[in-house]
Amino acid sequence: MAEEFIRPAIKNLQEYVPGKTPEKAGVIKLASNENPFGPSPLALAAIIKESKHLHIYPDQKSIVLREALSKKLGVKSDNIIAGNGSDEIMQLAAATFLRPGEEVIIPAHTFSLYKTFTQIFDGQPVVVALNNLEQDLEAMAKAVTKRTKLIFLCNPHNPTGTYLSAKQLDAFLNKIPDNVLVVLDEAYAEYAEAADFPGSIKYLKTDKNILILRTFSKFYGLAGLRVGYGLAKPELISYMFRVKSPFNVNRLAQAGALAALDDADFKDKTYQNNVGGKSYLYAELDKRGVEYKKTESNFIFINLKMSADEMFLQMMKKSVIIRPLTSFGLSKAVRVSIGTKEQNKKFILALAGLLLA
Amino acid sequence: MAEEFIRPAIKNLQEYVPGKTPEKAGVIKLASNENPFGPSPLALAAIIKESKHLHIYPDQKSIVLREALSKKLGVKSDNIIAGNGSDEIMQLAAATFLRPGEEVIIPAHTFSLYKTFTQIFDGQPVVVALNNLEQDLEAMAKAVTKRTKLIFLCNPHNPTGTYLSAKQLDAFLNKIPDNVLVVLDEAYAEYAEAADFPGSIKYLKTDKNILILRTFSKFYGLAGLRVGYGLAKPELISYMFRVKSPFNVNRLAQAGALAALDDADFKDKTYQNNVGGKSYLYAELDKRGVEYKKTESNFIFINLKMSADEMFLQMMKKSVIIRPLTSFGLSKAVRVSIGTKEQNKKFILALAGLLLA
Repeated sequence: MAEEFIRPAIKNLQEYVPGKTPEKAGVIKLASNENPFGPSPLALAAIIKESKHLHIYPDQKSIVLREALSKKLGVKSDNIIAGNGSDEIMQLAAATFLRPGEEVIIPAHTFSLYKTFTQIFDGQPVVVALNNLEQDLEAMAKAVTKRTKLIFLCNPHNPTGTYLSAKQLDAFLNKIPDNVLVVLDEAYAEYAEAADFPGSIKYLKTDKNILILRTFSKFYGLAGLRVGYGLAKPELISYMFRVKSPFNVNRLAQAGALAALDDADFKDKTYQNNVGGKSYLYAELDKRGVEYKKTESNFIFINLKMSADEMFLQMMKKSVIIRPLTSFGLSKAVRVSIGTKEQNKKFILALAGLLLA
Repeated sequence: MAEEFIRPAIKNLQEYVPGKTPEKAGVIKLASNENPFGPSPLALAAIIKESKHLHIYPDQKSIVLREALSKKLGVKSDNIIAGNGSDEIMQLAAATFLRPGEEVIIPAHTFSLYKTFTQIFDGQPVVVALNNLEQDLEAMAKAVTKRTKLIFLCNPHNPTGTYLSAKQLDAFLNKIPDNVLVVLDEAYAEYAEAADFPGSIKYLKTDKNILILRTFSKFYGLAGLRVGYGLAKPELISYMFRVKSPFNVNRLAQAGALAALDDADFKDKTYQNNVGGKSYLYAELDKRGVEYKKTESNFIFINLKMSADEMFLQMMKKSVIIRPLTSFGLSKAVRVSIGTKEQNKKFILALAGLLLA
């Protein structure tokens, strides 16, 4: 069978490179920005309660979860669509809106699935270089042509941890024509501390073509359960509903996410730990002259003087798994998740050992 | 915003019509072919054990589950891909292989997603009429043209419960050219009793372009968890792996399905109950002169002399939810899941009341 049996779009897809998973006890994983406290305890209790109903198909529209999100965010249920992780919503955006050959503007060195989904739906990726490791909104606005359909933004930006301010985002959106949809991936927004981090929900009260993506994978500790959501004006959401598979979000994901939303103690602990972890890591990295970017997320981007893959292997020997950014096109940088106090110390200790070696 | 903002393929998609869900106690649902005994108990135990790891992303390749399936079925892991329900594998087949304008042969009055996924990927559905409520393999083979890429078969067939024999399927596959992929949906195969029901796994030892779909939703009682799988030759599987999203199958689905596979007591109870339920229902329907099709599945297709929607409403009043087949294009037929002994009796009692009225 020849390659001509498959769609041309599929020929050049690159496989996603995940963070490595520990294979023995005592190894800590700071590679995938997972919540170091485990899943939300309220979510866990809800999951166990719901599990006896697992023989029944899930609600096709995630109605109860969407109603809870609607109240929490002050938007309508019709502004919300739930997905099997927020990556499914990215894919739905491409499946619903992207015509063959239309252009999709994507920041360089970013989450790889923006490009993958663009390619699956025969779109043309237009990759715009970062400026000082930040998304370059001026260059991205200039990259818009008559053929542009989607623009992916990531805020805070994975993997650099940098952010776009409310003012920057406002100015950018004002420049974007009405026939372009801006997909704003806010997978890490719950961790943002900056006073001028955008309150993007306000755009849902306008006629702007914006699709905001959120996830329960990081802040709520439910990466393994697969649940995220998209926020947009009802017309856009209704189109995506036509395309999504009927039972895309499993019953436990719907029940777990619903409970996690109200897990105030867990959310507070997660947020405070991240704030503390950042200060600690900044101080320790500064002390050692290590170059890094200030982060609005639950991970920290570190510039190396050595190969990221080599650094990864060295750290593995010290039982710490970090993420080399080679697959992001950055061969001399790593991304390290902010862990518990103990995990952060273990990371710094391992790093210090390497720097001395 | 005009409809021209969306892809043309999306304009005519029809929303999936699910079985209705009970809203009050005492109502029985025989509408979605769910396992009346609930989820596999071994799966439940595995799910509860696994839930404490829900903050960690699932294994991208469902390696452990695929290895267990590989041993169970006597095929290679490379013959297997797992999905967020077997419907995801159908979608992957279209995403991976179907080029715009290529034809997809689909039996009439069947599971609606075959057509939906064809449309999403700009394929051309070619619907072939049933013959005496059975898939008409002769007509389907004749429908093959130079533009044909996929053929969907469903065995046992949803919603009629009829089946294709090993001999019929063999003969059909021998007629199909090498540039066509046959997708054989075996969602209900575990219930089949017929001695000549095909052992389709044998095709994986050949070079045939066949993709077999299986699910944990029915026989294993895990519809709410979303896990199914596809079986094909390694080359086809590897292409689909390129297209699938990295974390498509959640952790609990992987762990639950793995445990369910070995739940011998549950599988035996499920199978025997279905065998017994069939005999009971056949006898009771015969007694009342109700027209139905013999079934190889866990549901029974009933021809009515009245409107299916009206029948559905009348049965709802008697606290029994059945599936009117209006959305399948059959306005005078219903599909009734085989339940527990008590549920089957309740259904017959309600039906008898209607027939007398």
